[in-house]
Amino acid sequence: MKRTVNLTTHQTKELQEITPLIREELRKASWKNGILMLFVPHTTAAVTINENADPDVCTDLVYALKHAFPQHPAFHHIEGNSDAHVMTSLTGSSELIIVENGQLVLGTWQGIYLAEYDGPRRRSLHLKFIEG
Amino acid sequence: MKRTVNLTTHQTKELQEITPLIREELRKASWKNGILMLFVPHTTAAVTINENADPDVCTDLVYALKHAFPQHPAFHHIEGNSDAHVMTSLTGSSELIIVENGQLVLGTWQGIYLAEYDGPRRRSLHLKFIEG
Amino acid sequence: MKRTVNLTTHQTKELQEITPLIREELRKASWKNGILMLFVPHTTAAVTINENADPDVCTDLVYALKHAFPQHPAFHHIEGNSDAHVMTSLTGSSELIIVENGQLVLGTWQGIYLAEYDGPRRRSLHLKFIEG
Repeated sequence: MKRTVNLTTHQTKELQEITPLIREELRKASWKNGILMLFVPHTTAAVTINENADPDVCTDLVYALKHAFPQHPAFHHIEGNSDAHVMTSLTGSSELIIVENGQLVLGTWQGIYLAEYDGPRRRSLHLKFIEG
Repeated sequence: MKRTVNLTTHQTKELQEITPLIREELRKASWKNGILMLFVPHTTAAVTINENADPDVCTDLVYALKHAFPQHPAFHHIEGNSDAHVMTSLTGSSELIIVENGQLVLGTWQGIYLAEYDGPRRRSLHLKFIEG
Repeated sequence: MKRTVNLTTHQTKELQEITPLIREELRKASWKNGILMLFVPHTTAAVTINENADPDVCTDLVYALKHAFPQHPAFHHIEGNSDAHVMTSLTGSSELIIVENGQLVLGTWQGIYLAEYDGPRRRSLHLKFIEG
């Protein structure tokens, strides 16, 4: 059985931390030992793991992605958000996290982020657990 | 048990949609509920999920990757395809999709793509299913 | 049950091949058929699969990433390693590999690499196996 959470993003491009939300879902579902898969069912938003101590890391990450993948004048896609589609494919639609005794196994500085690349919008995120 | 499908790509760099093919394999294998893992056993091709409504998104994605990761004159690898190796590591060799009642759980606009970065070639793709 | 291995990196940015190490862990754990998940619990190191025949591929990959994601003067993060955080999110914290009869199912040219983006350091890598 999967679970689905809904999120609201606030900027065109932002990393929104969802670690506490994921921990709460884990607790509600009583998932204990296995692998948790997170999946974003959108094509201009993704999920990633990065530092959650200094929010400047997220700001810098968005800056770097905009620099590397600008909205090129030569793009054909009429919606004008091809830059967001590129960032989504490179960041990835899913993440995996080991779960032990009902706890996420993350490194000291790791947090889980929804990567919004074409907001602000309402977004969904699926959680699927595989025991083992 | 894994399944393997063979694909033919037609351009040096292209995103080839494989969603219908994956659905057909799912049906043949009678995989019902769990997680489907796709794995590309090559180092200059990858697998990704992106928009399948407007083919211009794929064209733009390839354009953006060529711009961000050109075939630099300073590259040492003698085969002259280091740009393709870079794109492969960033796009990733695998994808995960939730399966419910034998159906792929994808968002409205999501399709699955083989990302060819050094074609045209014959390529393989492994499918592995984990029940749960 | 997960396993954890410790690694020492030697350069600021490098791809360190860990395929033999992963094979040895697989053997020690007697993991036979399923999916192996690798997870890096750091925010400036990642894991990836790429060519293991010509070491120039790794050199070129690091060169290309530095070119696409430079350490911008406009970055705010005070530690001065935002470039490494960006590379980590795009390369990804985890990899998946199919295991059959106790063997990694990799393509002819594929090797597994720890991607160090802010070394040299001591790093950890978790291995989690899901039977199926």
